[in-house]
Amino acid sequence: MSTDDVDAGELTVFVTRALSACGMATQDAGVVAAAMIDADLAGVDTHGAFRLEQYVDGLLAGDIDPRAEVTMDRTAASVVLLDAGGGMGHVAMHRASEVAIELARTAGTAWIGIRRSNHAGAIGVYAERLAAAGMIGICGAVSGINHMAPTGAAEALLGTNPLAMAFPAGLEPPIVIDFATSNASFGKIKAAAANGASMPEGWAIERSTGRTLTDPRRIEEGLLLPSGEHKGIALSLAIGLLAGVLNDASFGREIPDFADHSFALKPETGQFVLAIDIAVFGSADAFRRDVDRHIGDFLESRLLPNASQVRIPGRNRSRIRAERLRSGIPLGTPTLLSLSRIARRLEIEPCFTIPPA
Amino acid sequence: MSTDDVDAGELTVFVTRALSACGMATQDAGVVAAAMIDADLAGVDTHGAFRLEQYVDGLLAGDIDPRAEVTMDRTAASVVLLDAGGGMGHVAMHRASEVAIELARTAGTAWIGIRRSNHAGAIGVYAERLAAAGMIGICGAVSGINHMAPTGAAEALLGTNPLAMAFPAGLEPPIVIDFATSNASFGKIKAAAANGASMPEGWAIERSTGRTLTDPRRIEEGLLLPSGEHKGIALSLAIGLLAGVLNDASFGREIPDFADHSFALKPETGQFVLAIDIAVFGSADAFRRDVDRHIGDFLESRLLPNASQVRIPGRNRSRIRAERLRSGIPLGTPTLLSLSRIARRLEIEPCFTIPPA
Repeated sequence: MSTDDVDAGELTVFVTRALSACGMATQDAGVVAAAMIDADLAGVDTHGAFRLEQYVDGLLAGDIDPRAEVTMDRTAASVVLLDAGGGMGHVAMHRASEVAIELARTAGTAWIGIRRSNHAGAIGVYAERLAAAGMIGICGAVSGINHMAPTGAAEALLGTNPLAMAFPAGLEPPIVIDFATSNASFGKIKAAAANGASMPEGWAIERSTGRTLTDPRRIEEGLLLPSGEHKGIALSLAIGLLAGVLNDASFGREIPDFADHSFALKPETGQFVLAIDIAVFGSADAFRRDVDRHIGDFLESRLLPNASQVRIPGRNRSRIRAERLRSGIPLGTPTLLSLSRIARRLEIEPCFTIPPA
Repeated sequence: MSTDDVDAGELTVFVTRALSACGMATQDAGVVAAAMIDADLAGVDTHGAFRLEQYVDGLLAGDIDPRAEVTMDRTAASVVLLDAGGGMGHVAMHRASEVAIELARTAGTAWIGIRRSNHAGAIGVYAERLAAAGMIGICGAVSGINHMAPTGAAEALLGTNPLAMAFPAGLEPPIVIDFATSNASFGKIKAAAANGASMPEGWAIERSTGRTLTDPRRIEEGLLLPSGEHKGIALSLAIGLLAGVLNDASFGREIPDFADHSFALKPETGQFVLAIDIAVFGSADAFRRDVDRHIGDFLESRLLPNASQVRIPGRNRSRIRAERLRSGIPLGTPTLLSLSRIARRLEIEPCFTIPPA
C-alpha cells in the first residue's frame, strides 16, 4: 500500500463518522458510506470519497435533510414508490434496491420509483447489488444539473442522466454497464481545464455558434455533447422521463442549467430501479452458464490489430475491486486534502495519514 | 397522390393477401400487414412493405412457419413468456403488446419475453401502441444477423440490436424513440454501395486493420461501428442479453456474422416488451400534462444558429403519418417493383398500379 492508498474499511469508517457528524443517523450514514466506497472500489473515482465534501456542504447548508425518513407506497403488484424526503439519494437507492430484490422474487419484476431525492452516487453500484442477488438490475437517475440541450436547442434542458445495468454471470464477474448519456463527463472537462488541456471534438459546442468548443475554461459558454448524437439525447430524455417525470421529480426547466448560477429552485431529483428475477425465465443456473459462455466467446474472439484484449463491461470493475480491497484505494492528493478539510471542519479523526500538502 | 404513392388501406389488403398466399391464417396475415404498414406510415421505410419480399422468401422456404401458434406461459405476477413457434415476429410482438397492456393494468408493469421468434419489423410500432394505451412502452430485439464486434474484437458477435421507447403525452404526439445501436444501419450502407457513394468516418472499420472503411462495396471485409463507441456496444450487449439470452433465444456465436454466408444454423430470435402503467404512479393526466409542458419548453427554447427547430423524438413520425394517411405512402420504384414480383409469384391482385420499370 503506497502512502496515498487508503484501506477501504478505514475509509468507510471515516465517511460514516463524517456523515454522522452532519446529523445523519449512524445506520443511514453507514449505508451512504458503503455505497460511496463501493464506487471507489469499482474504480468510479468521481463518485466515491471524492464527493464527500459536496455532501457535507449540502447537509450542513440544509439542502439535504440528514434526518429524512424514506417512506414507501406499494401502488401495484410490481411497483413501489419511494419518497426520499429530501435526504441523501444513496439511502433511497439502497432501500429501493432491497425492496426491488424482495418484490421481484414474488412478482418476477419490480419497478421502484423515487421522488424528492438527491444525488445517489454511482448508480452502477446498486445495479451490481441486484446482480449479486440473482437479478438483472437496471437503474436510472435524473441529474440535478443540466449540461446538454435537446437536438437543435442552445439551452441546457437535459442532464447527462446516467443508466446502469447489471447481469449475473456464473463463474465470470457480472456484466456491469454504467454510463452517462453525454460523451465526456463534466468532471473530465473540469480536469482538462485544471490541467490546461484542450477538449477534443465531440465533447462540447459553443451555444452562440454551434461550433466545437475546445477551451474547457470557457465551458459555461458551451453545452456538453451527447454520446451517439441524437441517440444519446433520446436516451437522456427517456431516462429523465422514467426517473424524473414519472416520479413527479424535477426535469427540464425545473433543473438548473449548469451555467446559470442565479437558479433559485432546488431540484427534487428522481431515480428508478428495475429488478428482473432471472429465475422466473427458466433456470437461473442456465442463464448464468449462458452468460459465462458468451463472455468466453467474446474474450476468445479474434482481436483487432490495435487492440490488446476484448473489453467486457464490468470486468475492469471486478479486477480493480480485488486490487483495491487488497492494496487500498489510491485516493490521490486532492481527495485526501478534501478529506483532511472535512476532518478539521467536523472535528473527527481522519483514521489515515494525510500527506503533506 | 402521385403515381408512386399507395393508399395505406389498399397496401394493407395487398400485404395481407400476399402473406395469406404464403400459408398464413388471414388473421395473422392481417396483424403482420398492419404492423408493416404502421412502419411505412411512421416513415420507417426500411421496415415496411420494403421487407415483404424477404418475408415471402422466408415463409415459402420454410424458414418461417406460416402456421405457427404463439403459446403463452405466465411465470410470475408481472412476467409472461411467449413462444413464437418459429413464426413471424410481428405476430408474437403484437400478442406481447396486447398481453403487456392487459397485465400492466393489474400488476403495474409487465415484462413479456419472446423466444423462437423471427424479424418483427420496426419495434417502435409496438412501443407506440403501448403509449396509445396509456403505458410507457419499452421494446428490444436481438438482430438475426451480427454486424458489430465487441470493443477490441475483429469478429461480428453482436447485432445492431434495436431499442424502442414510447411515452404518452396529452395534446402533443407521444414521444417515440426507436434506434439501432449501430451508427449507420446496414440498409444505409447498402444504399451507399448501390449509389456509388463512399461512407463517412464512423460507419465502419476494416477487420484486418481496425482502420476506417469508406468503400461500402467492401463492407463484408468490415464491421459496423456502434453509436457512441463503447456505450453503443454496451447497449447492444444489454439488449441482446434481455431479448436473447434471458429468453433462451440466440445470441453471440449462435447468430451468423453478416459476412459468413456458410453459417448453417438458423438463429431463433428473441424480443422483449416492457409496459409501465403511468396511472400506477399517480395521476395519468398529470403525467400527460407534464410531458406536454416539457415538450413545449423544448420547442420554445433558444435555437442553435444552424438549427431550424428543436427535434423531439416521435414528432416526425406523427407528422409523416398524418401526411401519408392523407396522400398515400411513397413507396419508391424498387419497392413497387418488388411488390409487383410478389404479385406475379403468388398470383394475387396488386390493388394498385405498378409503374413501368
